[in-house]
Amino acid sequence: MKVISGGISAPKGFMATGAHIGIKKMKKDLCLLQSEVLAEFAGCFTTNKVKAAPVLWGLELQAKKAKIKGLVVISGNANACTGQQGVEDNYALANTFATLAKVEADNVLVCSTGVIGVNLEIEYVTAGMQRYFTCMSDDPDSARLAAEAIMTTDTFSKSIAVEIELGGKKVRIAGMAKGSGMIHPNMATLLSFITTDAAISRSVLDSALKDSVKNTYNMISVDGDTSTNDTVLIIANGMAENSSIKKGTEDYATFKAALDYVNKKLAIDIVTDGEGATKLIEVKVTGAATEKDARTIARSVTSSNLFKTMIFGADANCGRILCAMGYSGGNFNTDDVSVKFRSYEQDEEAAVPGHPQEDVLHFMEKSALLRFDEGIAKRLLSRSKIFLDIVLADGEAEATAWGCDLTYDYVKINGDYRS
Amino acid sequence: MKVISGGISAPKGFMATGAHIGIKKMKKDLCLLQSEVLAEFAGCFTTNKVKAAPVLWGLELQAKKAKIKGLVVISGNANACTGQQGVEDNYALANTFATLAKVEADNVLVCSTGVIGVNLEIEYVTAGMQRYFTCMSDDPDSARLAAEAIMTTDTFSKSIAVEIELGGKKVRIAGMAKGSGMIHPNMATLLSFITTDAAISRSVLDSALKDSVKNTYNMISVDGDTSTNDTVLIIANGMAENSSIKKGTEDYATFKAALDYVNKKLAIDIVTDGEGATKLIEVKVTGAATEKDARTIARSVTSSNLFKTMIFGADANCGRILCAMGYSGGNFNTDDVSVKFRSYEQDEEAAVPGHPQEDVLHFMEKSALLRFDEGIAKRLLSRSKIFLDIVLADGEAEATAWGCDLTYDYVKINGDYRS
Repeated sequence: MKVISGGISAPKGFMATGAHIGIKKMKKDLCLLQSEVLAEFAGCFTTNKVKAAPVLWGLELQAKKAKIKGLVVISGNANACTGQQGVEDNYALANTFATLAKVEADNVLVCSTGVIGVNLEIEYVTAGMQRYFTCMSDDPDSARLAAEAIMTTDTFSKSIAVEIELGGKKVRIAGMAKGSGMIHPNMATLLSFITTDAAISRSVLDSALKDSVKNTYNMISVDGDTSTNDTVLIIANGMAENSSIKKGTEDYATFKAALDYVNKKLAIDIVTDGEGATKLIEVKVTGAATEKDARTIARSVTSSNLFKTMIFGADANCGRILCAMGYSGGNFNTDDVSVKFRSYEQDEEAAVPGHPQEDVLHFMEKSALLRFDEGIAKRLLSRSKIFLDIVLADGEAEATAWGCDLTYDYVKINGDYRS
Repeated sequence: MKVISGGISAPKGFMATGAHIGIKKMKKDLCLLQSEVLAEFAGCFTTNKVKAAPVLWGLELQAKKAKIKGLVVISGNANACTGQQGVEDNYALANTFATLAKVEADNVLVCSTGVIGVNLEIEYVTAGMQRYFTCMSDDPDSARLAAEAIMTTDTFSKSIAVEIELGGKKVRIAGMAKGSGMIHPNMATLLSFITTDAAISRSVLDSALKDSVKNTYNMISVDGDTSTNDTVLIIANGMAENSSIKKGTEDYATFKAALDYVNKKLAIDIVTDGEGATKLIEVKVTGAATEKDARTIARSVTSSNLFKTMIFGADANCGRILCAMGYSGGNFNTDDVSVKFRSYEQDEEAAVPGHPQEDVLHFMEKSALLRFDEGIAKRLLSRSKIFLDIVLADGEAEATAWGCDLTYDYVKINGDYRS
């Protein structure tokens, strides 16, 4: 697998663009994406009982096993809590794209993100779509515009593309995502769009996506709020002309590893760019009885406000970690927990044997806090990436979660979001 | 029922004191409480799997149906994540009190709150206990010292006492509590101590307490973290000489209503004094299918970081409320939710018919946001007490939860707790 440039339209047969059409005051707010040929798709949608109109539409297309020609993404307005009008407006977005692309509305996915509870000025938006429809292209600049157009409070755009080889054919997978606030287990105002030119059936695509989401987007947390709009979509148009990927084959393993790479990269980018975040925290739980326990415990730590503020303050009040594990609902032997902070990735450890001792803070053994050097702790917790290892004595299962610190700026951004 | 003065030692036969013995730098850190005669007790303890040494001790005494002579409370050190040494230190606290009071260690409850993972300097603490043991008295000043001594980051001490009449006998119930951070469903670093001179059996006392906790302490949230030390204790010494309270009687109803009053008062005080909080939020859900749904939905709203920061910023981004309801796990018809903010208590509404319209903000009907006056919204959300009514169309059940805003100061306090 190699990382390539070109963004969301790097896979064969995809075109995209991004533009400002006036939903937001200044920034780009419309993203259009198109596949040359009708494509298969799979989606994961928010678990929130309250679902935005575009999510309902996506679920409907999923149930119908619709083929996909295009995708419309609106940023600045979530089209959630907007009643029947919202459903109609959403249809108008799909239908406008469909008319221009000479397909059916059922061939067009829609996503929205932004303020909840405000109806779109729909004529304005569809007019904007008509204006920019012909701007879609497969050049990297257009891909960049597309990735920027889906942002809300994001401070940087997130995209990635990779290439693998399946049976002698070059196959590409690309992704772009937006996040920022409301990012939590089972997704959040998280939109992530993956394109691939792989030939793959709908059912295989679906299971690859679900499996990948479980270990990536569902393991990140910014503030514990799960949005009404979360969506991850993958669109596969088959233009790489590989022989269709079957489950259990080497091709599947190669494709799945590349998909995981893309999703993990985007998920970590999202949490790094969490609202007000200054630090990325990776929490790895090993030695758990089951994967579910490992997952639950890791996520509980990354979601704890007390842990997150402690990381912001670089104050090693480490009992909070065991505390957050204890109320997680995950099972573990509470008398045999060992924990340390690292300042470097685990891969680096192998590469640099004899890593300087001050880059590790081993602070809990058999569930009791050890004495540690406060100076080392302060320095380590002041870094922009912090790795936490939690070692349990219950089994072989493991999971990794990612989170960020809770800062003054989080409060500031969310105390006055609409202004 | 009438509210009386006298604090925790207002009920007959109780004495208390509070003192500074050097666990904290400056503030009081030891509270002692004693009953003239051996008393019944009931307790509710943290649901966190990781339990501090004093919690394990309390559970042991509860299992043994121990009679209670006294209570020791240490503030400044949680004695949690302190291993076997912590268990031994905790026993030393109980035993020191017992020796001085000429009873068994099993007759003495212990609670701690403060930093996790640091062992007590136990000789220092037991010496302090010996020094202040004779200072316990039933005068209101000693009760005040006791209520102050259990505080950590609390900015004011919390206590209340009430008097009822049962079969011609005056019966008193008093309480003191501490909270501040880590306050959440199923309790938090929340310690609450109730004394009563009522004659009541252990089993009746136990069910009255559990029932009362469910609608009071378990319905408040400051930051979603559940501590390793949460404890609510009620000690009943029978010295009022009423005939023992039986379930299902009028006496029970009177006693329970007074106990609820005490617990609700302390619970609301705790959330008002939440770390960094500037506003109290009361969320009342009505029309739910079941009480559990009502409870789950109300708590999800008060626990949402996005909702809490919105209240801090007085920014009526009200879709966040429906969003938090949607991911709560509670069941409701998502198409028929109506919501309003009030600036006054419901009781006041009856008292002041024609309450000025600017004190109500009705902003959601049939799950769609209504247009509202931003000026009114800003003014209303800038008040120090905000009441939110959520009306569902699913049944008759209801529940009320209390929370506070999430502020810069919360981040500041918890980013640097130990300094």
